[in-house]
Amino acid sequence: MQVLTSLTGFPEWLPAGQLVEQRVLAHLCRVFELHGFGPLDTRHVEPLARLSRGGEVEKELYAVVRHQGPSDAVAKLGLHFDLTVPFARYVDENAGRLPFPFKRYQTQKVWRGERPQDGRYREFRQVDIDVVGQGELPSHFESELPAVMAEALAGLPLPPLRMRLNNRELAEGFFEAIDVAEPVTALRAIDKLDRHGPTVVEDELLAAGLSASQAQLCLGLAAITTPDGSFVERVRALGVQGDRLDAGLAQLALVLGDLQALAPGLAEADLGVARGLDYYTGTVYETLMVGHEALGSVCSGGRYDDLVGGAKKYPGVGLSLGLTRLLARLLGDDSLAVSRPTPTCVLVALPDDARRRDCRALAQALRARGIPADVAPTASKYGKQIKHAEARGIPYVWFPGDDGASDEVKDLRSGTQVPADAASWEPAAGDRTVELALPQG
Amino acid sequence: MQVLTSLTGFPEWLPAGQLVEQRVLAHLCRVFELHGFGPLDTRHVEPLARLSRGGEVEKELYAVVRHQGPSDAVAKLGLHFDLTVPFARYVDENAGRLPFPFKRYQTQKVWRGERPQDGRYREFRQVDIDVVGQGELPSHFESELPAVMAEALAGLPLPPLRMRLNNRELAEGFFEAIDVAEPVTALRAIDKLDRHGPTVVEDELLAAGLSASQAQLCLGLAAITTPDGSFVERVRALGVQGDRLDAGLAQLALVLGDLQALAPGLAEADLGVARGLDYYTGTVYETLMVGHEALGSVCSGGRYDDLVGGAKKYPGVGLSLGLTRLLARLLGDDSLAVSRPTPTCVLVALPDDARRRDCRALAQALRARGIPADVAPTASKYGKQIKHAEARGIPYVWFPGDDGASDEVKDLRSGTQVPADAASWEPAAGDRTVELALPQG
Repeated sequence: MQVLTSLTGFPEWLPAGQLVEQRVLAHLCRVFELHGFGPLDTRHVEPLARLSRGGEVEKELYAVVRHQGPSDAVAKLGLHFDLTVPFARYVDENAGRLPFPFKRYQTQKVWRGERPQDGRYREFRQVDIDVVGQGELPSHFESELPAVMAEALAGLPLPPLRMRLNNRELAEGFFEAIDVAEPVTALRAIDKLDRHGPTVVEDELLAAGLSASQAQLCLGLAAITTPDGSFVERVRALGVQGDRLDAGLAQLALVLGDLQALAPGLAEADLGVARGLDYYTGTVYETLMVGHEALGSVCSGGRYDDLVGGAKKYPGVGLSLGLTRLLARLLGDDSLAVSRPTPTCVLVALPDDARRRDCRALAQALRARGIPADVAPTASKYGKQIKHAEARGIPYVWFPGDDGASDEVKDLRSGTQVPADAASWEPAAGDRTVELALPQG
Repeated sequence: MQVLTSLTGFPEWLPAGQLVEQRVLAHLCRVFELHGFGPLDTRHVEPLARLSRGGEVEKELYAVVRHQGPSDAVAKLGLHFDLTVPFARYVDENAGRLPFPFKRYQTQKVWRGERPQDGRYREFRQVDIDVVGQGELPSHFESELPAVMAEALAGLPLPPLRMRLNNRELAEGFFEAIDVAEPVTALRAIDKLDRHGPTVVEDELLAAGLSASQAQLCLGLAAITTPDGSFVERVRALGVQGDRLDAGLAQLALVLGDLQALAPGLAEADLGVARGLDYYTGTVYETLMVGHEALGSVCSGGRYDDLVGGAKKYPGVGLSLGLTRLLARLLGDDSLAVSRPTPTCVLVALPDDARRRDCRALAQALRARGIPADVAPTASKYGKQIKHAEARGIPYVWFPGDDGASDEVKDLRSGTQVPADAASWEPAAGDRTVELALPQG
């Protein structure tokens, strides 16, 4: 299915894709609520002063200004570029009225003035879950939170996911132990490993002032990927030692072990994950979709020491799913679809205009039992009404009986037509409402 | 419950209010889908050229510009101020791939730079339904569409609604018949009738150049309100005649009669409804909430000849519910609430940290049966864990059994504690998930 981009960077979907997104969101939110996360919807604008903290993101901000007339007397505003900044502001403003640990999900659009390219959009939907404590947050949430997201995604007909974990203490502890002065520069080089390979990364590390042996150790660390706690031994085998490194190794082993119990086969330690290590303060997460690795991480996050940045600490852990990017890919190659492109299950045929009220009553009787129904818009010939249903993927046409004759219902796929009563008829399993479907063929 | 406005004109809700809005939206969308309306989510920005068509709205537009760096090479953009403009653009761009009559619902935020005041916001959510035809649209949709919205709203614990109908042909036909040169000016005066009374309106009509007898006839028309088709006789009694007036009277009588059958007691003809008569081309709708009349119309719309405005005609009929304004009022005076302020139904108590995995398994067994559950964040004393549940309105605490003893579950409201099995225990009716509740007391 085509992704509509009449304005570059601002994707939209055709009606079937709209239903896909609606069903995906409903499913995700249902699972989040089962785990005690409540909905949060914040305003879409924030004062620019809150949004701009320097760095790359500053260049991507969209400001919101009055087109004509006087400027608002309020602070200068911009569109939020993620859901963390408005969440932090909401927690900060309402902390006295929120229950901690506070668990919320949030599924709004965000805006970034990026150069549009494959899988990068200027307006896109994120699906975030976070749990944030006041003063402290037990570390068991670092495994529970990704398990919730994984459970939610596992309930969708998606390719399997592989979550990669790293830890900031581990990485920085390692760099400290081998005397790398500028860990941020080293991390930026290592971040290119997947796309450019070790030779390019080594050159960059050397250019950044690392010695040949330091560069080799960094590449050695970044190459370590294990599905279990054996990464600890592999780091030890590099011959690097340090207290901070030890603390990071222990914490990552704990989180990974716990996550293995919660979501077997999901996660692995990948000490080459560098993205987010400048922002998060503990565990970091990245998630690849098997077969779509080139798309990059579809779901990232981590543990942070302080959401708000004030005198009172609000430590948390969060994950953000890039839903628009994911859907654009899966709708684009038809690997995610709905069982039909319309909510309607039954089209009630209209014999003639005088019977519209009877036909409405029939449709209403079906709706009262949760069966989406519509009455044909005009009393055209039945053949044309059937074509009307077929053209929009409505599976059943209902023919009202006349002069005491029973109503009949026709399954347009099989062609079977049977007598039916609107008070008791049941559509075939899976036909009642539109659902997500596995791809055809 | 307080409406949060840390930024004037940009309201937000506390967690319980968030659940209210989520449940209201889920309910409305479910009813819309039962009637064959599919979801639509458009981008939030449109080219300014498409948004600005002169008039009042121009002054309220918010433009979206890059905060730094080069301007986008795309058209100058603005935030949409309603859901009709993006819907029209979407239909225009995708007409060849849409089924007509095309029925969609749309529930996004919109932005208007109005001076904030009671019930007026700068960012607010609208809930729109429209049905739009290609070339033609049968007039039965003019009664079916408001019946769908009324059915959706009737399923919510809201005060009763009173829908007022008027018709543009009727009004303009009347003005024509009595030789009023500037019907728009007259309508603008009549629009003030509810707020300022007939004396003010009469003065304004006279100031606009109407004769005393013309002004009296206008006030006579505007005073006509009938629950049935008797408005036709009352217009006739004014002694005004005309073909266009007759056509309008007949059309409004038809729509009102049909709507009475679909939604008894909902609608009335109110020939004083003036808003929207400059924009819509047939029936117009306004909806007051009984007891909250000062809030103005919470749901307005009408029939239009052409959604898109090109060579091909796309006639339609639509209604727009001002959800934020409605919720701000009903949350503000606590007349709309949820059964509890959290999704969580059961808090599984944690005897000690070593049993966290057992407790997770218990919670997961409950979730697998659709019961939202959470494990206590820390293994504090049971009294403290019970307080934790009470503080967030979780109705049940689950105590895992030890050494072969049965689990027990305590209902915090009654204090009753009974043995329970996570594979079969059922919460009391209405406790499983958060639902909208009638106000307490």
